[in-house]
Amino acid sequence: MLRAEICASSELSFLMEAHDALSAAIAESVGFKGLWASGLSIASSLGYRDANEASWSQLVDVVERIVDSTTLPVLVDGDGGFGNFNNARLLACKLRQRGAAGIALEDSCFPKANSLIGERHPLVDIDEFSGRLRAVRDTVGQDLVLVARIESLIAGHGMDDAISRAHSYANAGADAILIHSRKSTADEIFSFANVWQNRLPVVIVPTKYYQTPASAYRRAHVSTVIWANHAMRAAIAAMRRVCHRIFTEENTASIEPSIASLDEVFELLRYDELARAEARYLRLS
Amino acid sequence: MLRAEICASSELSFLMEAHDALSAAIAESVGFKGLWASGLSIASSLGYRDANEASWSQLVDVVERIVDSTTLPVLVDGDGGFGNFNNARLLACKLRQRGAAGIALEDSCFPKANSLIGERHPLVDIDEFSGRLRAVRDTVGQDLVLVARIESLIAGHGMDDAISRAHSYANAGADAILIHSRKSTADEIFSFANVWQNRLPVVIVPTKYYQTPASAYRRAHVSTVIWANHAMRAAIAAMRRVCHRIFTEENTASIEPSIASLDEVFELLRYDELARAEARYLRLS
Amino acid sequence: MLRAEICASSELSFLMEAHDALSAAIAESVGFKGLWASGLSIASSLGYRDANEASWSQLVDVVERIVDSTTLPVLVDGDGGFGNFNNARLLACKLRQRGAAGIALEDSCFPKANSLIGERHPLVDIDEFSGRLRAVRDTVGQDLVLVARIESLIAGHGMDDAISRAHSYANAGADAILIHSRKSTADEIFSFANVWQNRLPVVIVPTKYYQTPASAYRRAHVSTVIWANHAMRAAIAAMRRVCHRIFTEENTASIEPSIASLDEVFELLRYDELARAEARYLRLS
Amino acid sequence: MLRAEICASSELSFLMEAHDALSAAIAESVGFKGLWASGLSIASSLGYRDANEASWSQLVDVVERIVDSTTLPVLVDGDGGFGNFNNARLLACKLRQRGAAGIALEDSCFPKANSLIGERHPLVDIDEFSGRLRAVRDTVGQDLVLVARIESLIAGHGMDDAISRAHSYANAGADAILIHSRKSTADEIFSFANVWQNRLPVVIVPTKYYQTPASAYRRAHVSTVIWANHAMRAAIAAMRRVCHRIFTEENTASIEPSIASLDEVFELLRYDELARAEARYLRLS
Repeated sequence: MLRAEICASSELSFLMEAHDALSAAIAESVGFKGLWASGLSIASSLGYRDANEASWSQLVDVVERIVDSTTLPVLVDGDGGFGNFNNARLLACKLRQRGAAGIALEDSCFPKANSLIGERHPLVDIDEFSGRLRAVRDTVGQDLVLVARIESLIAGHGMDDAISRAHSYANAGADAILIHSRKSTADEIFSFANVWQNRLPVVIVPTKYYQTPASAYRRAHVSTVIWANHAMRAAIAAMRRVCHRIFTEENTASIEPSIASLDEVFELLRYDELARAEARYLRLS
Repeated sequence: MLRAEICASSELSFLMEAHDALSAAIAESVGFKGLWASGLSIASSLGYRDANEASWSQLVDVVERIVDSTTLPVLVDGDGGFGNFNNARLLACKLRQRGAAGIALEDSCFPKANSLIGERHPLVDIDEFSGRLRAVRDTVGQDLVLVARIESLIAGHGMDDAISRAHSYANAGADAILIHSRKSTADEIFSFANVWQNRLPVVIVPTKYYQTPASAYRRAHVSTVIWANHAMRAAIAAMRRVCHRIFTEENTASIEPSIASLDEVFELLRYDELARAEARYLRLS
Repeated sequence: MLRAEICASSELSFLMEAHDALSAAIAESVGFKGLWASGLSIASSLGYRDANEASWSQLVDVVERIVDSTTLPVLVDGDGGFGNFNNARLLACKLRQRGAAGIALEDSCFPKANSLIGERHPLVDIDEFSGRLRAVRDTVGQDLVLVARIESLIAGHGMDDAISRAHSYANAGADAILIHSRKSTADEIFSFANVWQNRLPVVIVPTKYYQTPASAYRRAHVSTVIWANHAMRAAIAAMRRVCHRIFTEENTASIEPSIASLDEVFELLRYDELARAEARYLRLS
Repeated sequence: MLRAEICASSELSFLMEAHDALSAAIAESVGFKGLWASGLSIASSLGYRDANEASWSQLVDVVERIVDSTTLPVLVDGDGGFGNFNNARLLACKLRQRGAAGIALEDSCFPKANSLIGERHPLVDIDEFSGRLRAVRDTVGQDLVLVARIESLIAGHGMDDAISRAHSYANAGADAILIHSRKSTADEIFSFANVWQNRLPVVIVPTKYYQTPASAYRRAHVSTVIWANHAMRAAIAAMRRVCHRIFTEENTASIEPSIASLDEVFELLRYDELARAEARYLRLS
């Protein structure tokens, strides 16, 4: 299903960020067809910086909670794989086990800094990273969609490096290429797409170049757009506003209309299923 | 510090709900002096129903992430202790280890149903629960504030039962009594407070009777008010609104002004500390 | 495969206890065809008493490590399911996810005491426990072998209670009946088997009545024998002996011949696979 | 206490390997005064290779179980710190929180290969690793004993490199130097000790050069000897022998005398404390 969305469809697809069960269930309820288990958002929710502070097993445990709370396919932000090819394939196996639909691996070094901070980062050797992709592919087969994320543009290594890596990663077995940019326009993305000519589907993350309309991505034959951290950022703004109001007013009456009711919570988490199951299974003699 | 707030201060104190690192850091940033690690909110964030689906160790792990992301004292919603006295004291030890400041234990049965759902629930035998409190007190000494939460009014057992339990729990070593009500007014609370006469400090959770102003709690000499789930409910409403907008508009431009910037995320999680530490410790020869 | 062993084979089958990856890999290496993830052994290895101190999620995590280190099917000692039907079916789902082949659920109360300690324990209401089995069956279908473990004889409730429970559990969807006894002879077991007449396959745990030869079980048409804790007990005795020698001699020379070589460790954990994979995937440009 | 043993005592000290609660409790019961939470043994027990397959948080969780099952101080094998200075200090904080007494950090790269396998490994840049030690020291202060483990001799970088690193690590705040060798004699160790002249206490791991008597270490003024994996290796040999016997004999009668009784298990895990506590706290009205 994720494979169909990203690789086989000619339609532009969208993946919505999730960092916990609630954000996942909400994204599904509004109509999204797939989720992005964001490394930045999950780390933030755990109180870690997006610098591989969270361990790979902590990431896997959060992904499990996300997968279990939704029927949508989940593409997981696997950073660089948390080490070398061996760590990457172990991570992929565990994500498959917990029900993820895909993994995105990026060619940044371990531990990574957040792509959007700082000027220039070293990247993993192209052959080493291609070997890492091959190891994951050989291990999980077609069970996971394998997205190779290229940091060349972010890290200041230029377009030629990006294209060169894209070819190598395609040969190594990637299903799609995620090309990342932190420019405020999508020009780099379109340049890449123009050269790349969709040898593999292109996935993008318009966090910085958010002004670009989806029609432009469609024209450029982009496969998939990831809204990478907006649920978390919405939650932060709202929690801050509501907390501030409650702190100031010493009362919740004025904010009640603007927050979810407990019934909405219960509906998101299917308390009705539990009630029905209690009626069915919890009979005493 | 939590002990001072709840037990030694004549001022009315407020604890704000947290269910992850972000909600905790935000509550601190707006001025709250203490946190409530809510069982309902943490379960929801994990995709579990508030029916002891989450294991005690999963709760402990989330509390660790909350504690590590704030300097505030954290009172943890320990449900009934996840079993008998032995489970309760083990839970208390682990919460102390992870840096919690207090634990609230309630006299509902295991597994529990959410207090706000359904009509009538059995409660734990009063002597058994008093023994449970004594076991926790003997194990953690004064390291944790021990709040005994009475479900008599919620569970339909009446005021006499509530008062009788309060006396027993006080004798067993509780530091404070949390009296819970799901009426839409605070009348039950005030009746309890009137009879109880502050033999131990009184803690309340005005989720249902939210219209009552704080001044009324001050007059009734309530010690502490817990805003038990409002950060989560604020997050849900905002994530739903923003997700819906992004889904509909296929773009984030219009919602950017209403969500937190990435810089706010980085500030909440102290990326500046990491940058300074990199400058200090990451020198190569 | 576990289903075939326990339910479909007319041969007597044997399951060997495992409590970690090493004990699992060793049991496979000597020829066993299935494993018993023992609650007592796993708890002991974690430093917990067999009284539901370990959380259900900690159990699941250990089972995952066991499953990942062997190709054998693993039957998991799920105690009573760690709560009611809802906890039991959640546990079963998670065990299935981690690759377990079956779950044994017993009709003791939560938290349980170890079956072999103390005189008399209350049991779960027969209809409540049957509902618990039904809930698990409806949730995991045929993906897990479901073994209903009857504690009637252990808990002092007698043979009639055991037989009555066996019929109810069979009707609820159990695949096999584990009848437990702590007598020093297998008489109780044979009496049960004689009345039960193999309506469902019978599983036994001859920890106390270890003198009985396997031929007697074959004559009684027992399906499966579980050696429930002997790997752990072997490890304890050996570690104690070797630790004592090292402590006394301040040297390991004399014990070297009696302990596994590092090469044996590397072989058990397939370091050769890692070396081959490094040669294949870890090429630099 | 660990600091006194390693740093302040003129006596030769011994640390016994532990990889789970049972091995820890046994080492204490035979008289050892401190434990070594071995990376190799813990990884093996989890079914991982000693190549940083286990995540740092999985290591922390195992250490917690070890610490909770013994009163002895535990020195933890922290490998290289699971990343850079930031990961190392996070690991150290978490180990302190779970009650560890010390951490050993080695200058091998991440992910590491086991020191005893393969010919030559790159090492971390000396200044980078010194910064890592400084970061840990600044973060945990004197709460943890900080042991700097030098892999120069193992990795084929020679004695000059080892001495140079030892000085740099001492300046960075290490409390002791662990000098590792895989020669079958202790000559390298003695050469190092002779040049080093105990500027900081010396810790050794005589896994390969096990013939050397303790008296030789005393003469060389070694501070501490770590028996790094012998409990695990004893357990493996015994489990294999016993499993084989049970598999062959289809009965446990003949091996019963050679394995620990259940009463020994119950004593190691203090079931008596639980029984006393039940008598004290589990009274019903």
